[in-house]
Amino acid sequence: MPPKETIIEKEVEVPQEVPEHPWIYAKLDVEKVKERAYNAYFTGGCSYGAFEGIVGELQDEVGHPYTSIPTKISVYGKGGTVGFGTLCGALNGASMAMNLVSNDLSMVTEVVGEYTETGYPTWRPAVAKKTDADLPISVSGSPLCHISVTKWCEASGFESGSDERKERCGRLTGEVAGRAAEILNAMADGTFAAAFVNPESVTGCNGCHGDDGAIANVHAKSECLQCHGDPHTP
Amino acid sequence: MPPKETIIEKEVEVPQEVPEHPWIYAKLDVEKVKERAYNAYFTGGCSYGAFEGIVGELQDEVGHPYTSIPTKISVYGKGGTVGFGTLCGALNGASMAMNLVSNDLSMVTEVVGEYTETGYPTWRPAVAKKTDADLPISVSGSPLCHISVTKWCEASGFESGSDERKERCGRLTGEVAGRAAEILNAMADGTFAAAFVNPESVTGCNGCHGDDGAIANVHAKSECLQCHGDPHTP
Repeated sequence: MPPKETIIEKEVEVPQEVPEHPWIYAKLDVEKVKERAYNAYFTGGCSYGAFEGIVGELQDEVGHPYTSIPTKISVYGKGGTVGFGTLCGALNGASMAMNLVSNDLSMVTEVVGEYTETGYPTWRPAVAKKTDADLPISVSGSPLCHISVTKWCEASGFESGSDERKERCGRLTGEVAGRAAEILNAMADGTFAAAFVNPESVTGCNGCHGDDGAIANVHAKSECLQCHGDPHTP
Repeated sequence: MPPKETIIEKEVEVPQEVPEHPWIYAKLDVEKVKERAYNAYFTGGCSYGAFEGIVGELQDEVGHPYTSIPTKISVYGKGGTVGFGTLCGALNGASMAMNLVSNDLSMVTEVVGEYTETGYPTWRPAVAKKTDADLPISVSGSPLCHISVTKWCEASGFESGSDERKERCGRLTGEVAGRAAEILNAMADGTFAAAFVNPESVTGCNGCHGDDGAIANVHAKSECLQCHGDPHTP
């Protein structure tokens, strides 16, 4: 009779190895990203909506390492960061997701720049949360939440606290996240080409006010005249 | 003689689970956070600086699960998000870090609100990167990168592309990250109490323009008069 052997397996928890940044992207279904972002808007706001729309899909489709990031890290960006009305939260969440899978920030520039020139909302979710109506469309001219929302309120006649405005921001969140996913898909295919060009006022004003100008007191590239009018005209 | 039994203990590695959000915070050395954020500013910009200052310290002090987040996810926030001059990147990175360890966004409101009323820079790193000089101090009145930088350029006389401006933003990044860590330490001690109060213009203007007002076309709480003057005064 051979000697008896008993093997006792002891489980030892070890952190799963996390790959170097940026993480490998897997092409996503843009329509699924839009729907997920739209629905997430109504649980955690615009920034969470966009981040969860993209990274949540990557968690489902790819799993590790995406599952190691809690998408709730992005909730703070809502209302232009806890309601301050600065950077549109959908842009913040989408940018963060893009930066997770790439060091190429020209994709972020593209999404942010394009946003300022795009009429929102045009996309409609499968099942609307607040109203199923077609909503009026406006162009913000700015990546700022406050300007984006107020211009839409002015264009639509709806109040900032209305269900219609929330529905508008939910749909916009879906569209922005979907656009970011489209651009990431193009990156994966090797077909992404930046198209956004700074508005004329930025090029013009920054000739003197930009980092390399004679006055050099501006380090920004948002449309100038929207806030400043033309201070050189009496 | 009965057969001898050999017991073999074998260690089997199993992946450590990533905990639910928010992750458990460990109190940090505020001065170390400031130095780390300041130094990181010069490799990845303001937003990365602040996020890496806090989360990098948590990676070193706590390890898992913090090591599963690549802090480079936050680089995009630089220059108010890829140079658009919106939300100050140091605020973006610090807010993201705070939201990782807490759902209490009043801490984010505190850091962002306080920033608008604080004179920067007043802190000095152990070893300065660009200039060892004392730098002029300015108050932005705004969480926006463009306003913060331009007000400092006007107050100091230094250009936006100058070494002094970069040094100023590096030190500010250290201070903002350090302040966020101070507040998180207070949260851990159970002593955090919000002190920031919206400026009078926000309370006043939002009486009519805010979500619940008669006009209700503004969903924001940044100082109004800085951009608008008083449009009710002829």
